[in-house]
Amino acid sequence: MHVNLLCLLGLAFSAKAQRFVRFISTDDQIYTGDAILPPHDTDAAHSTQAKVITGDILGDFTITNEVKTIKTLLSPLDPEKTRTVRCVGFNYAAHAIEANVTIPSFPILFYKPWTALNGPTAPVPITKGYQNQTNFTSSMDYETELVVVIKSKAFNITEDEALDHVLGYAAGYDVSHRGWQIDRGGEPQPQYSMGKGADGWAPWGPAIVSTSIITDPQNLNLWTKVNGVTMQNDTTASMIFGVASLVSFFSMGITLLPGDIIYTGTPSGVQLGKADPVWLTNGDVVEVGTENIGTCTNRLVYV
Amino acid sequence: MHVNLLCLLGLAFSAKAQRFVRFISTDDQIYTGDAILPPHDTDAAHSTQAKVITGDILGDFTITNEVKTIKTLLSPLDPEKTRTVRCVGFNYAAHAIEANVTIPSFPILFYKPWTALNGPTAPVPITKGYQNQTNFTSSMDYETELVVVIKSKAFNITEDEALDHVLGYAAGYDVSHRGWQIDRGGEPQPQYSMGKGADGWAPWGPAIVSTSIITDPQNLNLWTKVNGVTMQNDTTASMIFGVASLVSFFSMGITLLPGDIIYTGTPSGVQLGKADPVWLTNGDVVEVGTENIGTCTNRLVYV
Repeated sequence: MHVNLLCLLGLAFSAKAQRFVRFISTDDQIYTGDAILPPHDTDAAHSTQAKVITGDILGDFTITNEVKTIKTLLSPLDPEKTRTVRCVGFNYAAHAIEANVTIPSFPILFYKPWTALNGPTAPVPITKGYQNQTNFTSSMDYETELVVVIKSKAFNITEDEALDHVLGYAAGYDVSHRGWQIDRGGEPQPQYSMGKGADGWAPWGPAIVSTSIITDPQNLNLWTKVNGVTMQNDTTASMIFGVASLVSFFSMGITLLPGDIIYTGTPSGVQLGKADPVWLTNGDVVEVGTENIGTCTNRLVYV
Repeated sequence: MHVNLLCLLGLAFSAKAQRFVRFISTDDQIYTGDAILPPHDTDAAHSTQAKVITGDILGDFTITNEVKTIKTLLSPLDPEKTRTVRCVGFNYAAHAIEANVTIPSFPILFYKPWTALNGPTAPVPITKGYQNQTNFTSSMDYETELVVVIKSKAFNITEDEALDHVLGYAAGYDVSHRGWQIDRGGEPQPQYSMGKGADGWAPWGPAIVSTSIITDPQNLNLWTKVNGVTMQNDTTASMIFGVASLVSFFSMGITLLPGDIIYTGTPSGVQLGKADPVWLTNGDVVEVGTENIGTCTNRLVYV
């Protein structure tokens, strides 16, 4: 812990970062920092300044007293540091019901390639293969999710041990093309992979909020707004398999590594399963948010 | 090209490696090399020596004239260099039929985490969660597959361009637990992930055989032997989607990177779908092989 003037004034700094952000500053350099939030605001996306962090947030690091101005928030962890992105299907009962899927007895795991990772304000590119085609609809959908970041190696760990391996939490947008996920995903066993794995289809952030702030990941409101209109609104209390259960389960004979990321599933309110779905299209802005963490606001862009 | 004594004797060396291997030598160091095959033998697993390669086989490298003795073959590429392992489901019609699955109209993509990658002679660990449990059978199965190694970045490429991005081919064993893949995989949309992604469940090798040797990847015999008995025997000509089609398809809005690996699906003959399946168990030895490439021979070991 550093002792400095502010400490003498009665404000103590913790050596443990609260809200890890990665950002481009006004000097056009990329920094990792501890976000300084505006008063009475818990959305790290509203931060305009951060204290620079040196070292590796997955290992040893130091929070310095150097403050930099945030110009653009990036994905909170350099995507190169993430080796595996795990995602969970149908982890909220109401979502399974709206999608006409049996409520799962075990977590449904699928992966995104790490190249899907994207920043909290970056555009989401929709390339030709995912746009409207003859007899094939570009069925782009939103999914708000709580994201978990692994901080230390985990193998065959129990639920009781699981949260000790978590660095923190973020908000995430599981970009989903229902046509490639389901209709063209392979019958009768639709796969999630082509419908969810394109470059930039996993925005997350705006910060990794540490486990010292989020002590209970099962009591967080999460939502989606499309062009400002609320479409999903639920709480992580509704998860079928909670964070500790998921981390333990995914470590079954499998090594989870520092920097691995888990998207924990989405609540109800998506377009999938609606009688008259209104799919996202070029220019639509999706905001996903989680209480006490903040928001990602990403525009779909046809490229 | 190096000019040396052997060249003067009429034996020319190509600067292009033929069969990339990675191995522990008798000096207990790890090397990458160009395998020296025994006469009239095309199985790189039978090589006892290799010419040392310096540099990066995914970029610039040099085949030296230094010959090292092979003690243990490792996975042909350092697993750290592979960012994404893609796999294809039901890519042989006879396999789809035996599994009672509709023949797919588009490739069925799923992923293994890179931590599943394993050497061509290494044990395949079966941890407690995948062993027999009350009312749950350890339904371990074999799958022989042709493996493709990407050598250069590919994004939205055509089938005509696809093979230019391939370094070479290997044999691969897609280790599969049918209980976790299907029964506990999530109904009615079984996922492949927990049933195929444990540490060490993707043996491959024994070499990456370059595209200068394998000019046509759609004309290779491939097989599985379990404890010496042939269980699968087909040809890559039977693939529904060939290598060029798969590489092009998977690059749809998605960046494929040097070192990425694709398991291209298995032919018929697996235990899945048999009326009285005989699942693999502790100590069983699975050999998967591909013509002109070689064999991987891995023992299942309960741990």
